[in-house]
Formats: sequence, C-alpha cells, structure tokens
Amino acid sequence: MLQRLARGTRAFSTAQYPRYVKIVEVGPRDGLQNEKSVVSTADKVTLINMLSDAGLPVVEATSFVSPKWVPQMGDNSEVMKQIKRKEGVYYPVLTPNLMGFDAAVKVNAQEVAIFGAASESFSRKNINCSIEESLERFQPVCEKAKSLGIRVRGYVSCVLGCPYEGPIDPATVAKVAKTLLEMGCYEISLGDTIGIGTPGSTLEMLRATKEVVPVEQLAVHFHDTYGQALANILVALQEGVTVVDSAVAGLGGCPYAKGASGNVATEDVVYMLHGLGIETGVDLAKVMEAGSFISSVLNRPTSSKAARALYKPLASKL
Amino acid sequence: MLQRLARGTRAFSTAQYPRYVKIVEVGPRDGLQNEKSVVSTADKVTLINMLSDAGLPVVEATSFVSPKWVPQMGDNSEVMKQIKRKEGVYYPVLTPNLMGFDAAVKVNAQEVAIFGAASESFSRKNINCSIEESLERFQPVCEKAKSLGIRVRGYVSCVLGCPYEGPIDPATVAKVAKTLLEMGCYEISLGDTIGIGTPGSTLEMLRATKEVVPVEQLAVHFHDTYGQALANILVALQEGVTVVDSAVAGLGGCPYAKGASGNVATEDVVYMLHGLGIETGVDLAKVMEAGSFISSVLNRPTSSKAARALYKPLASKL
Repeated sequence: MLQRLARGTRAFSTAQYPRYVKIVEVGPRDGLQNEKSVVSTADKVTLINMLSDAGLPVVEATSFVSPKWVPQMGDNSEVMKQIKRKEGVYYPVLTPNLMGFDAAVKVNAQEVAIFGAASESFSRKNINCSIEESLERFQPVCEKAKSLGIRVRGYVSCVLGCPYEGPIDPATVAKVAKTLLEMGCYEISLGDTIGIGTPGSTLEMLRATKEVVPVEQLAVHFHDTYGQALANILVALQEGVTVVDSAVAGLGGCPYAKGASGNVATEDVVYMLHGLGIETGVDLAKVMEAGSFISSVLNRPTSSKAARALYKPLASKL
Repeated sequence: MLQRLARGTRAFSTAQYPRYVKIVEVGPRDGLQNEKSVVSTADKVTLINMLSDAGLPVVEATSFVSPKWVPQMGDNSEVMKQIKRKEGVYYPVLTPNLMGFDAAVKVNAQEVAIFGAASESFSRKNINCSIEESLERFQPVCEKAKSLGIRVRGYVSCVLGCPYEGPIDPATVAKVAKTLLEMGCYEISLGDTIGIGTPGSTLEMLRATKEVVPVEQLAVHFHDTYGQALANILVALQEGVTVVDSAVAGLGGCPYAKGASGNVATEDVVYMLHGLGIETGVDLAKVMEAGSFISSVLNRPTSSKAARALYKPLASKL
C-alpha cells in the first residue's frame, strides 16, 4: 500500500517526458560535506549501502580534498574501502587535483568528479582562482583518468545565480559546460548552488547549454532554497534532460552561499517522477528508510516533504 | 535590490504560459481555520489589509459556518466590518448554507464560496452527506446570490486523492466541477486537499475537467504536503489555467486528513510566476511582510521557502 501511495495517485506518461530518468544521489558527499558534527565512517558506509540497495544507480560517495578544507570527508579512503559495491552502481568521488585523484584510484574509484563555476566571483571566493584557471587545473586529472579508463563527471556551480554577482549569463554556463565536455567529461551537472532559479531562468539556461552540449550528457542539480527545485526539474525534463541530482532527506547546503539550504530531496524527486509514470529503478520506501537513518544520525527532521508525509503516519495507517 | 532578486534571476516568457495569473489568497480563511490558538480579530484584520495592500486581487476573508464547528471563524461579521476594503479587491467568504449566506450579506459580502468534494467518503466524513446531497444544499445559496448580484466561487476538494479512498477518478472531479458551474459558480477551484498529487495526476485531472468547464473558469488549489505544489501549478499553467490559490506563509492544513500540511505559500508561487515573466500585480516584498506578521502572531517560522531565503538575510545583505 505504501508503495502504491508512494508512486503517486496514478501514473501518467506523455511524449513530453522521458521514459527513464537516472537519479544521481549526492547525499553522502554534497549533502554531508558541510555538516559540522562529524558523521562516523560506519554511518556513512551504512548510508551509502542503503542507497545503492534502494536502487539508486549512482551514489556520490565522498571527496578526495584536503581534510583541512573539508574535515567531514577526511575518511574518504576508508569509506571507499568499506562500502559494499553493488554491480552496475557507480560511486563517483570528487577529485580537485592529481593528488586527490591518485588517492581515489588507490582505493579503486571507478568514477571521479571535477567542478567549475559559472561565476567568476564565486570561483575566486570559493577556490581562489578564475574560472579558466580552475578548469586548467583539472586537465591533468582528466588526462590521467582517460588513460586509466575512469569516468569523469563535471559540475558547473552557480548556473542560475551567484551570491556575489547576482544573475549569471546563460552563455557563460554554456561555455563552461562545453569546456568540461571537451576535457572529456561524460556528463555535465548544472548546479543552481544557491537555489535561486525558477523554471523561467532554468529554461533559458538549458536552451543555451543544449546548443553546445548534447542534452543526453546534461544533468540538473537543484537546491530547494526558494522551493523551486521540483518545478525546475519538471521543465528540465520537458527540455529532454534525463539525469537529475538529488540528496536523500534533502541533505546539504553551501557554506559560501548565505541562505542556501539543502539539495532537493531524492524522495520528493522520486515521488514526482513515479507520479509522471517515469521509471527510475528506485524503491521509494527504501530511500525513505535511508533518509530516516541519516536524519536520526544527524538528530534532525528530514527535509523531504514526501518522507514527512509518507514515511510514518501513512505507512502505519494505510 | 530585494525586488530584483525577488523576481528571480531573470524573467522568461514563452507562449506556453499565460501573461497574467490571478492569485487568490486563502490564508486568512483556509489558512487560519484550523489553528488551535484563536487569532484576534484585530490581527486577522491587519493580515487581510496587508494582503490587499500587497496587490492581491482576491483575499478570502472568513467563513460563515457555525462557530461550534470552526471556532476560529466565530468573529466573521466583525472581520468583515473592520477590514479596509480596497477598490477592485474581492473578499470572498465561505457560506455552507442560507443562514451563513444571510449573515454574510448583512455585513456586505460581495462574493461567497461553496464547496463540494470529489470523494464520497470524504464528503460523508467531513460534512456527513453524499456529494450530491451536499451540492443540493447549496442550490438555495446560489439562487439567492444570483438574485442579489453576488458572485459565487465553487471549491472541489480531494481532486487528486482522498485520505479514505485513495486515488480519485478524474471523471468524478469533472462531474462535480460541471455541477458547480451549472449552479452558477463563476469560478471553480480544484483542490488537492491532501497534497498527494503529482504533475502526472494533475495533468490528467485537468484535461478531464477542461472538457466540461472552460479553463478560464478553473482555479487550482494545492497543498504542499508532498512538496509537489509548485510543479503541479506549473503544469496547470501549461494547460491554460490562470487562477492559482495560495496562502501567505504557507498557512493551513486539514484536520480531517492526516499528514496534510499547509497550502502552497503565496510567496513561493509569486517568486515562481515572476521568474517566468508572468504578471500578478503582487508586490512580493509586501506579501513577505504580511507572512512575517502572521508567523509572529502564530509564533512559528514561515513555511515559505522563498520568504525564509529572501526576507531577512538577503534583504539586509544585498
């Protein structure tokens, strides 16, 4: 019964929407990285295993950055060693430079991720260099990954707005995305880091970016700061995007962007997609269990509205 | 600066969306009716005046039901007498029967609202009669309203799901909506009372209903229980709907539907619409002020994400 309700009142499918959407779960990395209280390695491993067990095809696992900058990810190698790797599932890790890349390869990473910003100001404040310089630094990572047969995912942040410079020109997003594609990224995730975008700006940005990157290689990555994430995802689907990033329980936030709340919740995304008759391969009940687990570890309520509505009251009542 | 940010990063308008959307503010009635702590008449009047001052063209003001059932609305006549009526703004009130209607007319109501359910079980549990019986009871109200030149708005509840019987057949929604239209309602508001719908079920329901009621006379009314409200509104706009119900600060909830959280927040709706380049005539900053006012009266944080993100931190910082 839970499953039936969880799938929405009725499935509906039109030519306007893709048949299948790949959900990239970013909770264990993007979601947890800014948590002040350190989550134990065991809990991270449990979370990742629960998420892959729920049918998520990609689970971003950790980040190979300096623990000086991101202490929460200091156990990156341990996490990668301890997780139970499910066949067919990818566990990308963030690698900002060759040192991080080499460490990731040492623990058998099959996919890495690199990141550029669409805002000069954000790039300078965040990683202390220009957009172009930041992308150049990733060149050796991409080359080495290629030689080792390791997939590289590219992120573009601030695609719809920047906390320092406001609106971002879609042409800049397109340019950064194209550069990442040319560097060898198999997929480019377009991130509205501060969650400021609406379906209007999303549409405009996607149309510009689709002109230079095949839409099959684009992913969208929304934060729900202004409550717009699902509406933005909806127009992205209508534009042909078939890859959506999200974080279980709506984990996350950005320390460099005031007021930026968490990623859009995986549960809410799955609920919407299934309601549209779109396949994801994800078991919503199991994702909600994972969300319940990490929320209790963090000792706070889930940010997923679907989980709040469905997970306990209805599961026990209906 | 706030206004610029509040309008979204950039306006975008396509033929897919209407140029103007009428927002029907339901916070003072639908939003407050189930609040346990009684809100003072003075605070209700202040709220309503702030909302009309913010440019909202319709502000549902109160309900002429028995105070035995809805104690919060026991001051209905006082509220209607004390509000400052702004030219061109409508202040509809709920009138379940002739007694309520006469009381509303006595305090100069220009518009009343009646309500039917699309679920038999919900109708029986909520108002203790069948859907058909409930609609028959409104017949004399509609006739008298017509003779006095008073507008009647019709509500249909549970259009996408019922807490007792699950999914609802779109044909039933269409039938109830058509009956309300034939009884003389100038506008029919389709309510997802328990917030369970997705863009998939919304589309299906709207397409069925549009066949029997002109889309210009349809409104949508979403609760954000599963986080789907804005996405549902987006597809409704794409289907030609131009009237959207919402409640400032996301007030509301339904006592008969477990887990049903508040109405979609007016602030979040306005933020999305303006981001799409759609006109509303609403001043978002002023709506956020009204939301801040009622949230402090109720002593709890706003449920509007846009207000949480914009109202203080950004307003003072940028």
